[in-house]
Formats: sequence, C-alpha cells, structure tokens
Amino acid sequence: MRIIRSIRGLQGWRRKHENQIIGFVPTMGALHEGHFSLIRQARKHCSTVIVSIFVNPLQFGPSEDFSKYPRPVKSDQQWCRESGVDLLFCPLSEEFYPQDFQSAVSVNRLSQRWEGEARPTHFDGVTTVVTKLLNLVRPSQAYFGQKDYQQLLVIKQLVQDLNIDTKIVRCSTIRESDGLALSSRNRYLSENQRRQALGLSAALRHGVQLIKLGKQGVRGIQREMKKIATKSTGMDIEYLTICDANNLEPLTLAKGNMVLLGAARLGDIRLIDNMLVKAPKKS
Amino acid sequence: MRIIRSIRGLQGWRRKHENQIIGFVPTMGALHEGHFSLIRQARKHCSTVIVSIFVNPLQFGPSEDFSKYPRPVKSDQQWCRESGVDLLFCPLSEEFYPQDFQSAVSVNRLSQRWEGEARPTHFDGVTTVVTKLLNLVRPSQAYFGQKDYQQLLVIKQLVQDLNIDTKIVRCSTIRESDGLALSSRNRYLSENQRRQALGLSAALRHGVQLIKLGKQGVRGIQREMKKIATKSTGMDIEYLTICDANNLEPLTLAKGNMVLLGAARLGDIRLIDNMLVKAPKKS
Repeated sequence: MRIIRSIRGLQGWRRKHENQIIGFVPTMGALHEGHFSLIRQARKHCSTVIVSIFVNPLQFGPSEDFSKYPRPVKSDQQWCRESGVDLLFCPLSEEFYPQDFQSAVSVNRLSQRWEGEARPTHFDGVTTVVTKLLNLVRPSQAYFGQKDYQQLLVIKQLVQDLNIDTKIVRCSTIRESDGLALSSRNRYLSENQRRQALGLSAALRHGVQLIKLGKQGVRGIQREMKKIATKSTGMDIEYLTICDANNLEPLTLAKGNMVLLGAARLGDIRLIDNMLVKAPKKS
Repeated sequence: MRIIRSIRGLQGWRRKHENQIIGFVPTMGALHEGHFSLIRQARKHCSTVIVSIFVNPLQFGPSEDFSKYPRPVKSDQQWCRESGVDLLFCPLSEEFYPQDFQSAVSVNRLSQRWEGEARPTHFDGVTTVVTKLLNLVRPSQAYFGQKDYQQLLVIKQLVQDLNIDTKIVRCSTIRESDGLALSSRNRYLSENQRRQALGLSAALRHGVQLIKLGKQGVRGIQREMKKIATKSTGMDIEYLTICDANNLEPLTLAKGNMVLLGAARLGDIRLIDNMLVKAPKKS
C-alpha cells in the first residue's frame, strides 16, 4: 500500500493511472467496521481502491470536537493495508487549505434542515472537502455510508449539480449486534452512555415497525418513538422525524419511500442514526 | 465541427477522447475578435479545441441584461467553424440547471470588491458555471481574457482552491484601433456613446503613463484619470482604481505589479476595462 501526503504526489500518481477504475472511500480516520464495509465494496467493484484520511476542520463548528476527534494513525494505516487498499491519501491541512484558500461549495436546499440546523456550517465544510477530494482522486465510484443519510443525499446532489463524473454508492449502515450504529464517535461513550445510546436505534426500529404495520399518522408514530428513545435514558432528543427519503421534507402521513432520522445528545456526545422504510401496499 | 447540446452527449464524446490535450474557451456567445484570439491560442497549444456558448442566467442580476443579451447563434457557429474549433458545446438551460439544481460555488475574498460590489451575485454565478463546465469538459487548459481581470483572478483562485486539474491561461485584451476594449456589450452603444466610451480606456492609459513616469501617489493619479474619463463625456464612473494585481486590494502608493481597474455607465450600458502596469525601478 502506497501512502501519499502531498497534493502534487497524488496528482502525479493519478496521471500515471489514467486507465484504472478507481473506487474511493473518503474518511476522517478512526476507522471501524463501517468503513471497512465501504472498502470491501470498492474492492469488489474497482481495480484500484483509494482511501483518504483527513479530519476536515471546515466541517466542525467552533464548539465541536475537532481537536479531540480520534486520530489513531498507525492502526488506521495497518487496517487499510490489511484490507487491500492500494493508496492511502493523508493530506496535510496546511497544504489542503493554504492561507489564501477562500472558496466554498454549498448545496442549498438539502443542507438546510436537520443536521444543517444543528450544525450550520457543517455541510458546506463537507461539500467543499468532497469536491476537492473528488477533483484530486477522480474516482469512477465513491462510497458513502447510509449512517450519514443527509450527507449522502447532499453529496449525490452536489455531484449531479456540478457534473462531477463520479458515481456515489450508498452502503448500508453497519451496526453492533444490539443495534447501535457504528460511528467513530462511539468511542467517546462511557459504558453507561453506551447502554443509553441504544434508545436511538430502538426508537427508529419501532417507527419502522409501526409503518410496516400500516400506521400512517406521523405525529402518533413520532410520539411512540420518542417514548422509547427517552425511556429510562438520559438522552436528549434533538429530532426524531419521518421524511420523504428523496428530499428530506417532513411528512404528516406515512407514504412512499421514507427515512426516519434521529439525532440525540448524551452529555457532550452527539449521535445520529436513520432507517429507510417503504409504506406498505394497501391490500 | 461537431455541435453538442446535451450534457450526456458531451460526456460521451469526452470519454472517447481521453487522451486529447483539450483547450477550452467558455463564452456567452456574441463572439468578437477577443474570443477569436482565445481560440487561436487554444488552437496553438492544444490538440483539440472546445468552445462553449451559454448565456449563463446565474451571473446576471435581476435588473441586468440577461434577456436582451445578444445571441447571434448562426454567425457564432459559422465563425467557430471557420476558426478551426473542433467541438461547440451549447447546453440547454433547462438541462444545465434543472428544477432541483441547488448548488453554488463561491470564491469569497476576491469576489467581494469592485465588480462584486456592483453585481453582488455575479461572481457566484460565474464560479458555479465555470466549475460545471470544467468538470464536463476536463480541459488541460482553459482560456480567459484579461478584459475581465477580476473574473480571471477569481477563476484562477477557484481552480487552485478546488484542485481542478486545468491550467487557466490569461489572454491579452483585444482593442479597437482607438483603444476601446472589445466586448459583446459594445454592440449596445449608440454612435455617440461609442465615442464617449473611449474616455475609460484613455483614463486607464493615462494612469499607466503617470505610473511609468514614476508618479506614486495613487490619489493624485486617480484624480487625473477621473478628469480624463469624464471630460466632455456623459460617462458615470463607478470606480477607477489602482490595485495590487494579485489580490485586488487598493493601493495608496504605486508599487509592484498593479492593475488599474475601471467601470463606468453610459445610460443603461455598463462597461469595464483594465490595464496592468509595473512600478518603474528606482534609478
């Protein structure tokens, strides 16, 4: 596995590999089984797999966890090597965002709600870094986890709107056996918080069940979800919502392809999760 | 010469020509000798020359001349054919900006001043369309006229910031023999306005002369420039300024590489022009 840090190094490598079918997995490191499932899919579809590790300062708010975000560099590299990654790109922040850097890419409507409300500059940071990375790597396919569902939609829209010649592949959320969605931030959780955190996936699962059983009134479903999420946990729900899976607009009646989105706080730690569900056919 | 209107058509063509050195001249049509000098340079450097013609609605303000902007489609095509253009890309607005289009690209600091103040949404429109076009065409080199100097710097910054793999080539402003910079908007000028418009280039030329003669005080130079620009003309000066040629910050003392920027109105018509000059070495 090759490790490249400089932009010029990557560009040079890329020009020498013009004919490869490149699969790209952009990450912020602190890799877990969720990332490896992305890498495995890239490995399956593509002749060359590139992973980037870059803790992108632009997508963190001023009061967020940028400085303490986990950076287990050595073990991340080792795992990538063992997973058959061909090239690991670890840009340096000073070169990636030099002093005169002043551009921004934004996806307007899809970035407004939900995570966009909670983290006002977050998605502009994501779309800017992803645009840069896709321009550098020029992959045929790039792999993103469903775990960050709104991010996935925002990036799909970005790629479509800006005519970036990369297919965005959605990969299923990987969960612990008890249902907790894998996340680099899970390592912040104490044992007790780890138990409480289960309320989020349990609530989403319950919502999915109710919809599958034919329940339609979103307000009622949300009330039941909230009950489960907060039952005997100290979790502070930011939102628990049922939306159109394509545009993230909230629904009042369950119909079509939906996504149930949730965000919650446990102390300083913010967790998100989501599940997709389709309204049952009327019999 | 091939003419392509659809995005998919262009992408298909581009994939079949992966190994070409592509020179790209993006235009809004109403082609004049300035555009042809860009095309000639592309022709000289590159194996394939692509010209785009697209009157980009995003870069016009609500009270500007989008609907009446000249669109001499047939003669533009004829001129391109005769100039050895290989491919003319004329996207359709409905496909280029479909209903769900919602992304924007911006270059923040360089876009603020001068044209950015006069036309607040202009540069975001330019950077968004140029990003899309560069992603579609993927040229080795793209050619822009010095006539729109601030636009040139904004696009250079964009390409650097977003790691777009295209070299931006600056081409000199082409002028009529009496000094008027060529512009598609010149065709709006009445005979009388055409005469008055000369005040702008005359003022810039005078400023360049004063600097070359060693005059340093910018305020004094600007005063003389303004006198020339408004002498016996009905021209309404928006700005006449002497800036650092790299970052467009206004100077108080002439030094280093400078650009003299001017913008003026004649009735409804807005004209811009600029000249580069270097401070003389002290003897």
